[in-house]
Amino acid sequence: MKLWGGRFEKPTDKLVEAYTASIPFDWRLYPYDIAGSIAHCRMLGRRGIIPPDEAEQIVQALQEIRHELDMLVAEGAPAPDPALEDVHTMIEARLREKVGDLAGKLHTARSRNDQVALDERLYLREAIAGVAEQALKLQGVLLDLAAQHVDTIMPGYTHLQRAQPVTLGHHLLAYFEMLDRDLARLRDCFGRVNVLPLGAGALAGVPFPIDRQMVAQELGFESVVANSIDAVADRDFLLEFHAAAAIIMVHLSRLAEEIVLWSSAEFGFLELDDAFATGSSIMPQKKNPDPAELARGKTGRVIGHLIALLTTMKGLPLAYNRDMQEDKEGLFDTVETVRRTLEIMAGMLATATFKPERMAAAAAGGFSTATDVADYLVRKGVPFREAHAIAGAIVRRCIARGITLEDLPLEEFREFSPLFEEDVLEAATARASVASRISEGGTAPERVREALAQARARYAASLDFWSALARRVRV
Amino acid sequence: MKLWGGRFEKPTDKLVEAYTASIPFDWRLYPYDIAGSIAHCRMLGRRGIIPPDEAEQIVQALQEIRHELDMLVAEGAPAPDPALEDVHTMIEARLREKVGDLAGKLHTARSRNDQVALDERLYLREAIAGVAEQALKLQGVLLDLAAQHVDTIMPGYTHLQRAQPVTLGHHLLAYFEMLDRDLARLRDCFGRVNVLPLGAGALAGVPFPIDRQMVAQELGFESVVANSIDAVADRDFLLEFHAAAAIIMVHLSRLAEEIVLWSSAEFGFLELDDAFATGSSIMPQKKNPDPAELARGKTGRVIGHLIALLTTMKGLPLAYNRDMQEDKEGLFDTVETVRRTLEIMAGMLATATFKPERMAAAAAGGFSTATDVADYLVRKGVPFREAHAIAGAIVRRCIARGITLEDLPLEEFREFSPLFEEDVLEAATARASVASRISEGGTAPERVREALAQARARYAASLDFWSALARRVRV
Amino acid sequence: MKLWGGRFEKPTDKLVEAYTASIPFDWRLYPYDIAGSIAHCRMLGRRGIIPPDEAEQIVQALQEIRHELDMLVAEGAPAPDPALEDVHTMIEARLREKVGDLAGKLHTARSRNDQVALDERLYLREAIAGVAEQALKLQGVLLDLAAQHVDTIMPGYTHLQRAQPVTLGHHLLAYFEMLDRDLARLRDCFGRVNVLPLGAGALAGVPFPIDRQMVAQELGFESVVANSIDAVADRDFLLEFHAAAAIIMVHLSRLAEEIVLWSSAEFGFLELDDAFATGSSIMPQKKNPDPAELARGKTGRVIGHLIALLTTMKGLPLAYNRDMQEDKEGLFDTVETVRRTLEIMAGMLATATFKPERMAAAAAGGFSTATDVADYLVRKGVPFREAHAIAGAIVRRCIARGITLEDLPLEEFREFSPLFEEDVLEAATARASVASRISEGGTAPERVREALAQARARYAASLDFWSALARRVRV
Amino acid sequence: MKLWGGRFEKPTDKLVEAYTASIPFDWRLYPYDIAGSIAHCRMLGRRGIIPPDEAEQIVQALQEIRHELDMLVAEGAPAPDPALEDVHTMIEARLREKVGDLAGKLHTARSRNDQVALDERLYLREAIAGVAEQALKLQGVLLDLAAQHVDTIMPGYTHLQRAQPVTLGHHLLAYFEMLDRDLARLRDCFGRVNVLPLGAGALAGVPFPIDRQMVAQELGFESVVANSIDAVADRDFLLEFHAAAAIIMVHLSRLAEEIVLWSSAEFGFLELDDAFATGSSIMPQKKNPDPAELARGKTGRVIGHLIALLTTMKGLPLAYNRDMQEDKEGLFDTVETVRRTLEIMAGMLATATFKPERMAAAAAGGFSTATDVADYLVRKGVPFREAHAIAGAIVRRCIARGITLEDLPLEEFREFSPLFEEDVLEAATARASVASRISEGGTAPERVREALAQARARYAASLDFWSALARRVRV
Repeated sequence: MKLWGGRFEKPTDKLVEAYTASIPFDWRLYPYDIAGSIAHCRMLGRRGIIPPDEAEQIVQALQEIRHELDMLVAEGAPAPDPALEDVHTMIEARLREKVGDLAGKLHTARSRNDQVALDERLYLREAIAGVAEQALKLQGVLLDLAAQHVDTIMPGYTHLQRAQPVTLGHHLLAYFEMLDRDLARLRDCFGRVNVLPLGAGALAGVPFPIDRQMVAQELGFESVVANSIDAVADRDFLLEFHAAAAIIMVHLSRLAEEIVLWSSAEFGFLELDDAFATGSSIMPQKKNPDPAELARGKTGRVIGHLIALLTTMKGLPLAYNRDMQEDKEGLFDTVETVRRTLEIMAGMLATATFKPERMAAAAAGGFSTATDVADYLVRKGVPFREAHAIAGAIVRRCIARGITLEDLPLEEFREFSPLFEEDVLEAATARASVASRISEGGTAPERVREALAQARARYAASLDFWSALARRVRV
Repeated sequence: MKLWGGRFEKPTDKLVEAYTASIPFDWRLYPYDIAGSIAHCRMLGRRGIIPPDEAEQIVQALQEIRHELDMLVAEGAPAPDPALEDVHTMIEARLREKVGDLAGKLHTARSRNDQVALDERLYLREAIAGVAEQALKLQGVLLDLAAQHVDTIMPGYTHLQRAQPVTLGHHLLAYFEMLDRDLARLRDCFGRVNVLPLGAGALAGVPFPIDRQMVAQELGFESVVANSIDAVADRDFLLEFHAAAAIIMVHLSRLAEEIVLWSSAEFGFLELDDAFATGSSIMPQKKNPDPAELARGKTGRVIGHLIALLTTMKGLPLAYNRDMQEDKEGLFDTVETVRRTLEIMAGMLATATFKPERMAAAAAGGFSTATDVADYLVRKGVPFREAHAIAGAIVRRCIARGITLEDLPLEEFREFSPLFEEDVLEAATARASVASRISEGGTAPERVREALAQARARYAASLDFWSALARRVRV
Repeated sequence: MKLWGGRFEKPTDKLVEAYTASIPFDWRLYPYDIAGSIAHCRMLGRRGIIPPDEAEQIVQALQEIRHELDMLVAEGAPAPDPALEDVHTMIEARLREKVGDLAGKLHTARSRNDQVALDERLYLREAIAGVAEQALKLQGVLLDLAAQHVDTIMPGYTHLQRAQPVTLGHHLLAYFEMLDRDLARLRDCFGRVNVLPLGAGALAGVPFPIDRQMVAQELGFESVVANSIDAVADRDFLLEFHAAAAIIMVHLSRLAEEIVLWSSAEFGFLELDDAFATGSSIMPQKKNPDPAELARGKTGRVIGHLIALLTTMKGLPLAYNRDMQEDKEGLFDTVETVRRTLEIMAGMLATATFKPERMAAAAAGGFSTATDVADYLVRKGVPFREAHAIAGAIVRRCIARGITLEDLPLEEFREFSPLFEEDVLEAATARASVASRISEGGTAPERVREALAQARARYAASLDFWSALARRVRV
Repeated sequence: MKLWGGRFEKPTDKLVEAYTASIPFDWRLYPYDIAGSIAHCRMLGRRGIIPPDEAEQIVQALQEIRHELDMLVAEGAPAPDPALEDVHTMIEARLREKVGDLAGKLHTARSRNDQVALDERLYLREAIAGVAEQALKLQGVLLDLAAQHVDTIMPGYTHLQRAQPVTLGHHLLAYFEMLDRDLARLRDCFGRVNVLPLGAGALAGVPFPIDRQMVAQELGFESVVANSIDAVADRDFLLEFHAAAAIIMVHLSRLAEEIVLWSSAEFGFLELDDAFATGSSIMPQKKNPDPAELARGKTGRVIGHLIALLTTMKGLPLAYNRDMQEDKEGLFDTVETVRRTLEIMAGMLATATFKPERMAAAAAGGFSTATDVADYLVRKGVPFREAHAIAGAIVRRCIARGITLEDLPLEEFREFSPLFEEDVLEAATARASVASRISEGGTAPERVREALAQARARYAASLDFWSALARRVRV
């Protein structure tokens, strides 16, 4: 069954049928397609564009189809006949089996062009809610861990060199902040997704007295797309989502990289739970941080999907072009990848064992308090640049002698500057260093506690917002 | 002059100096770097971290340096010595020439890590305002043209096949809407850019009683980055801007494609002004739509910069890594490319000559009113699918006979369905088709006039918002 | 069943199992995995590393498994249990059912790291042969069409403006040449794929007296990877293939764009066969070039997969990292996409109807012989730049008067230069223009005939090469 | 001065002039443009298309211009007037100053379309030679280091977990092999670049009796592009180069990542020379591996340029479109980036200090010889899977007791299997493990020595090939 063909004299080539069919992947849009059709049909009935009782008949049949398909999916993914072309055709074919020629009336004042745009927006609304849910779960884990590790000292790194001591709690809150911006991007994106395209028809609008506001309200859309050509021609709401997803993955890839590093024998800051690591078929000792590696690796996949869609859309004249059918597989894969990666990261972190003693030892080595030595002099009036040079020379001396800053006796400090006094020995400890970083947003435990409280408050509000939204968009 | 070196025993290799220097491109951050330093220095003085009079001396010297550099740039882009490493070093070196060792105090409670993050944010705030300004200019041109062409009929295309007649005004407003969402994305992005990173120090915060809120207020930032590690480690505000820019370019590439198509002899819908076209060195007759082609081509460049930064950031452990120096050249190029492309598109469209008669002729040919014939039957009670099949058969007949729908006599219409009456001949005209698309957002001239009025209102508010913002962020 | 676990105290989390399992997509490597195992096992037997009769027993069981899986796949794609982790585990589990603990001996002197690299190379060898087969098919269609259209005149375009007349045969041969280079790239890539990685073990080589040359010979590899770490750590052979595939798709996207343009009412150079076009569910008249649009759109997908793998591999330390599991899905999809797109393009072109009269009319309009007018003067001694200016002025006159070059009478030509004589009227025709382009590689029919003969000879040699290769690599 | 304009009535808008000008970046093609013009002009003279003495006059003037421009560049990069549009116009303008209207004859039988394709190919030939030169330099350093470290034991890693001991020499040779394939890719690419496009004219060939073979020979091209449309329309030779360059950068990014890891306090396998590291403006102790980080980061930039060009070329109809002007800046930047990154990596490695004792200690810890314990049992007849499970259990015991494999007494080994005898203690050492990996390509020092000898032989041949090529392509 095709939804077209009147002017054609030959059947479609089998190769073409297979090449152009979207049903192998767009079948999963069925809940959204049916929800959209029901809202459209009710409006047609209420506006008298089709007889109300016929509308009711169609709506009931659609509800049955939804139920039937839910059952089928529960038993395993369906593999519909490619001859059915796409999800719209599949559902209309089934509708025809149920209500006969009446099925043809559902397509009044509607085209597959505005229909598919609607399906995608309904799908993406739910998908965004789903991604946000997992992002919040990961944020929750980070908050809990940060609370446990407000006082756990570790080396802070720049250039993967030990730079200045920080607390693990502070470090983990950096990821909380990244995810917070990721959620804000999703929220902004949602606002541009949540607009009704239906009613655009093929591209020009329709010659029937439809009521788009009624449909929008029934489906929970904030507003309607103002221009019918724009409604069927653009996919920027997908591009924006892909970009937001890619940024999430870049953030997660950094956390994943750190988990890989920290799990190494060399760092030893972290041991993954057995349930979140895998072994080797050849090397019996191996305990590999595979989920973290895959999370990092899957970043490429999500970036790839973003590029794919940008490239596909580039240079297409208005309005709909079949190239745009390519917008779905990458989207489905990105949604699933991001959602699952967030979930895995949450599970992996929540079950991991941190090794504070290894972190503390690392923070004490490596001269990461040299800045504190310089700052010590600054507080005594030495310009920072000069203080920096003195501290650098002290480090050079220590390296030459194979000792750390904490090993250097006061008299040797004083060889470099008479301003050094007894208290420099304390100032050069990791704990004193951390305690001294009291600027707003700094790593001093008191500051981290404040930051944590403030993060918890934002988190609670965010949870409320997203769970309300999730309820609203469920079809 | 290097800002470091105390622990080093050898000078930097010349290759390394050239390879790692950012001064060849980051010199252009000088206005932002100086503005940030002035705000930082004033705060240091007010908080007594350095003596107020010394702070004042430094501020004055920085203002002089700003003026000197403005003069130099006015004479042509400077080519600073690579040994100066970066814009921060360049300015500090000049400051040292002016105020001697006092210059060293400016770096108190600050690192290049938070400083460069600040410079980038100050730069990007202005850049976003500049991009928005050009987007608004193009929107203005679209509104004016749409107003002129509310009644100009052209073929609407899907699959580059004539689909249904639309009006040129309606078509152009589709681009207005795309740009409107682009501006909304820039506004959302701006909100995440406009947050102060300074005060993060190298990564851990600083051990001085600084006042970040004071600095934020002086520089017009909405708030401060809450976590010092996050402040120096992330560049998601750049990624988000790159993504927004890439989407703008994809939109413009579509408009550019249409200008190229419309300028072809085959379409002939548009003639570019001589001032916005170029010729051929070999073919004397050529008048090429080069600006449109380049606009389309430059989309690749902007997408490339987005990918470059995503790839660079992927998998980097916290906090700062030198890889991140790569964030600047692509950014500068993207800002300039998007700004200039918007400007060119505005100029090209504003000066182009549209050919309504060619458009009208094309709309009348090609069976683009076949849907209207089907809809005619639907209004008489035929289910859409059946009506569609009948109209398809009529088209096939016309093709076989080499005529258009408008040429088909009533009696032949009636061979396909007895429901056809005299008025089908009128219904099959392009003008009637357009007039019939009266759904909200449709192409009927009355709807387009409403849409235009509504767009003008939004536009006026947008102009106000962005011009206020532009004034606020100028350094 | 896991191939590891001795040191683990907990089972793998279900989420992790699902997240890390590759069996849902890598099951399709089973023919290659089995072929590799058979070759490995025979070598182990011959070298006495395991008893020869045991080796024989394993080989027979593997052959049975291959047969069983072929049967299963013939009935529909299998959906193996994610707990089976990957294709290697799936096959070993089945082997264990057949030969008991003996199955464990197959893994002697081998790791999944070198095994999967082998599977991928065996798969890709066949895939390259398959892509080449379809590229050759398309080349064959292009040659046939070019032969039919050596004398068919059409406008040659630059900037989508009519530039100079060419022949359709000449135009189509441009695509033949692109595909020829694509095939050359595939051939070069094949050379770097066709190298045996097995024997690298996990990364360090193996402590058994294996014979890698024997395995290489049995499997038809040209040589062995020289360094065991490199053998398991690199995927540049995949990156190179992805890049070659992306370039093929860029070429096809250009042909697809032309098919879309030519199928438009405005160009009208081409009508697709009904079997290679699709219709609209709403617009009865539509005949859309969907396969061409999808071919163009799928270019984004293939570029996306290239980027995904480049990004995934970037910055990974040696040797194997789990990120690299991400190398498969994109590869499978790229192979299938390129193969099917080539096939569709061949079918679409072979069945399309070209419209020589529309092409000829377009070539005659639009001043595409203005260069010939300039060249006419050059042959009479006028410097090209001056001749160009004169021809430009003539075009301007024609445009002002609304006529074409062919309409301009001799006397008016002579107003621009006394050098014009009667024969300029002939020189300004499209046919004369085409005939004059007699330089090597030019569009004059005699040159195109030569080019065609030369292309046919290359094509025959290429067919031989690739069919021999295809036979050699079949597992 | 414009090379066109006869039919235009208005000057180009200043914005358009700036937007479309390529002279700000393509001026650097001048040596290639002039070399191509000289060869073209000589041919025109010899074929009598222009008078031989005039040809000679033009050639001499072009040689003078080359010299003048070389002088200008030696003094600093020129900033030519954008009104000059492109490098071709710039040179022709200067030629006109020297030889007057005669300059116009140089453009006989040539268009900017084939001219720019020629310039790019001439440029890229030299660029490939330059990249190869630096790749060879890095290979040379790797060979020298590998020779020094044939016996230096380090942990081999998979998943960044210690997997099996390898030698540093073996590890470095893995990179030698990658670069060897990179060079092979460049060689193959060169073969497709080294083909003459000139003579294609604007797109259709030219109506003059030119001799393309003569020009090809004079410029050292292997052959001529067979189809004139293809010659001006395709840029696949650039795409292929970009892809090869991106793969090189991915390889270097992995080496860079390892240098960053090895330079960390946690690994401590490597110390960079002071001349190849940089410090911190705030943290006096820092010694950062900046060149390695930038090499890693610049991978993004090169991948970005590849994507940019793929995206730009996608979907362009034949033949030349102005979009293609975008092919140059990314190319120049990629060439320079890859060349300099290879050079920096060579310098950085050559001057670095490896720490064999740290590597040896790491190889001894972490159970990296557990596979050897399993293999020990395999050699006594235990199926590998069972042996693997036993070794895993032993590792678990050691971890529980906080000891390494080397600490475990024989009797405890025997608790797990009676097959263990005295020699298992030796077998479990890193040195024995390395020595045992004697398979072809394995890490046993004897194998690495063989591999090194074989690599040296290939290297010598490669050096010869590339230096001969470099001489041949210099303009």
